[in-house]
Amino acid sequence: MEFIRDLAIILIAAKFFSILARHFNLPEVVGEIVAGLLIGPSLLGIVHETDFIDQMAEIGVIMLMFEAGLTTDMKKLKETGLKATLIACGGVFIPLALGAILYMAFYGFGPVGSETFMKGLFIGTIMTATSVSITVAVLKEMGVLNGYVGTTITSAAIIDDVIGIIVLTFVIGLKSGNANTGEIILKAVLFFAVAIGLGLIIFRAFKWLDSRYTHTRRISITSLVYCLAMAYIAETYFGIADITGAYVAGVVLCNLQDESYVERRIDITSYMVFAPVFFAGIGLKVSFEHMDLKLLLFSAAFVIVAMGGKVLGCGLVGRLTGFKGKDSLKIGSGMMTRGEVALITAQKGLAVGLLTADFFTPVILLILCSSIFTPIILKKLFHDETTVKVPMRESNPVK
Amino acid sequence: MEFIRDLAIILIAAKFFSILARHFNLPEVVGEIVAGLLIGPSLLGIVHETDFIDQMAEIGVIMLMFEAGLTTDMKKLKETGLKATLIACGGVFIPLALGAILYMAFYGFGPVGSETFMKGLFIGTIMTATSVSITVAVLKEMGVLNGYVGTTITSAAIIDDVIGIIVLTFVIGLKSGNANTGEIILKAVLFFAVAIGLGLIIFRAFKWLDSRYTHTRRISITSLVYCLAMAYIAETYFGIADITGAYVAGVVLCNLQDESYVERRIDITSYMVFAPVFFAGIGLKVSFEHMDLKLLLFSAAFVIVAMGGKVLGCGLVGRLTGFKGKDSLKIGSGMMTRGEVALITAQKGLAVGLLTADFFTPVILLILCSSIFTPIILKKLFHDETTVKVPMRESNPVK
Repeated sequence: MEFIRDLAIILIAAKFFSILARHFNLPEVVGEIVAGLLIGPSLLGIVHETDFIDQMAEIGVIMLMFEAGLTTDMKKLKETGLKATLIACGGVFIPLALGAILYMAFYGFGPVGSETFMKGLFIGTIMTATSVSITVAVLKEMGVLNGYVGTTITSAAIIDDVIGIIVLTFVIGLKSGNANTGEIILKAVLFFAVAIGLGLIIFRAFKWLDSRYTHTRRISITSLVYCLAMAYIAETYFGIADITGAYVAGVVLCNLQDESYVERRIDITSYMVFAPVFFAGIGLKVSFEHMDLKLLLFSAAFVIVAMGGKVLGCGLVGRLTGFKGKDSLKIGSGMMTRGEVALITAQKGLAVGLLTADFFTPVILLILCSSIFTPIILKKLFHDETTVKVPMRESNPVK
Repeated sequence: MEFIRDLAIILIAAKFFSILARHFNLPEVVGEIVAGLLIGPSLLGIVHETDFIDQMAEIGVIMLMFEAGLTTDMKKLKETGLKATLIACGGVFIPLALGAILYMAFYGFGPVGSETFMKGLFIGTIMTATSVSITVAVLKEMGVLNGYVGTTITSAAIIDDVIGIIVLTFVIGLKSGNANTGEIILKAVLFFAVAIGLGLIIFRAFKWLDSRYTHTRRISITSLVYCLAMAYIAETYFGIADITGAYVAGVVLCNLQDESYVERRIDITSYMVFAPVFFAGIGLKVSFEHMDLKLLLFSAAFVIVAMGGKVLGCGLVGRLTGFKGKDSLKIGSGMMTRGEVALITAQKGLAVGLLTADFFTPVILLILCSSIFTPIILKKLFHDETTVKVPMRESNPVK
């Protein structure tokens, strides 16, 4: 029964702090993450990470990305496609280089191919993977998710995910001597080919279902099942993150007539239970056990470089591809957030001996800091322009 | 990631079979249970019971009972209170006696206090605990949950739960020689005292919240948290089933102005994910490994006596307390369903040596059969009277 207790505490703490966050004009997700930090092992210690919480959180982030996909404006997605790809490249390779340099600045430089060099390259690799879910939540909260900039950020993050996986495989391949990068790239390409091919059929099937059974439970539930299936298939068979699969499923259904009906039901299910568990879960993961001064300094530098590297890489390419200065900054800031992919990457590094367990602390701090600062910065950047009143999550109208 | 796969399979199978069930004019929950049976270990074996599924199912049944509480008609609850208590008593003691006789008919009679007698008494004890969640789902599906008969069934089942716990403690106490039944009764009384006392304060708090923030997420989420907390507290501190706690929480909030707003949000969350997992989960538990002829015969007799005993016990007392013949039958049939409490009781019996593991099969069969037949019988009994078209779950209007 402890999972019921945990869930109750997480939901009430997350709600309370999200209301508090809004009072201070901060994004609600920041409040939810802080709630997790407060009740988690690093402070009060009344809730600890469990399999149940992790699984609920995973469903939460899958639903979030599915919603982002559902509300996509297909026309804008097509318009931003090329730019997003270039921005994703900038956001991968600049942090990769900066991360490697940072590591070697702290732990000594080594020639290309040496162990120090490889470890540095791996620190850079950890910095590459954007986790856009928090940015998506903030943009959604502000009602600018399917604008031009919002769409660019979301699609750049999706492409970034793919490039990140390729880089990871390449770096690990370099270390072990057999880089099967070709296979990884092939799988990624295959995934999108299958997803789009299947998507065309699925969309037709849903369109038929929708015309016969408009506004029914079977539409909402079948959509959710499709989203879960795509998340599972992406991760299990193609090595692509589950949230990418969920997002693609959402994009496939974004032109459905019942799109907003489905989205509303997913949204309610998500905010009632799953999404707060996801955001509070980030705070729950934090623990400050193995900390010394050098690691603390490195952690601080790691967080700054990782966040700055994305702003620089994505922002610069954004500027070069024709975005205005402020919009470039928004894109760069939106790409700053890191999530569980960074942790998974770190775990891979541990397994192949490119990383020691100490380095988990900076990675978790990066996830936490980027999760807290990105929303604040984004809200500031977007706020000056949104002339309409910022729609508040709390007083969502009943669709 | 397997939990995502399991969830997707459960949701699509449950939806498909619930639609199919409706085509054959059967209740939808029957379809969902059959879906679990089909995909579970006894047939296809593509989904197996996991902690995750059990936990999701538990949240599902908690939400279901909370909804039943929320939609309670307080006036009818008060009117039916005394009758419901008497009906609950009839539904406990008749099956208790019949179960003991059945066991001894199969395995030999023994004098009062002998081991055979105690084992027989324990078989009877397993038969006592009604699990009303499935009946609630069916009555809700048919739109008669908060009618006079529906309210009587729900409150009788709640009282039944308490009496069942007392009987269980008494029987186990008889066996071990120290019956601390007094403590159990005290705890049960204390629970209802605390629940009602606290409920009055909680209701005022919610009323204030509701007047200031009507139709907001904080109302829905705080309500859900209150329900989860009551479920946890009931089971952990008072030895009362979690679903009883959830039901009481619902009753406390049933006069809230935003009651239907909250109920709608819980309902969506429940039917999108949790409820199908609960119903399919019943089917998942079934496996026919250890079966021989004698056990098969005993199982068949056990199922018939357990179901018939409730109809007899509750129906008879219902008739005596002034219900019409057909309404008494409805009440008796509504009380037939058994759930996880029967399994938990069986587990307790195994622990103290009053039961061998073989007897789990008849218990699971009872849960399965009563879960499948009760809805069918109830639908038949209620159908003749509902002059209005039976509201279908699928085409629920958007409130």
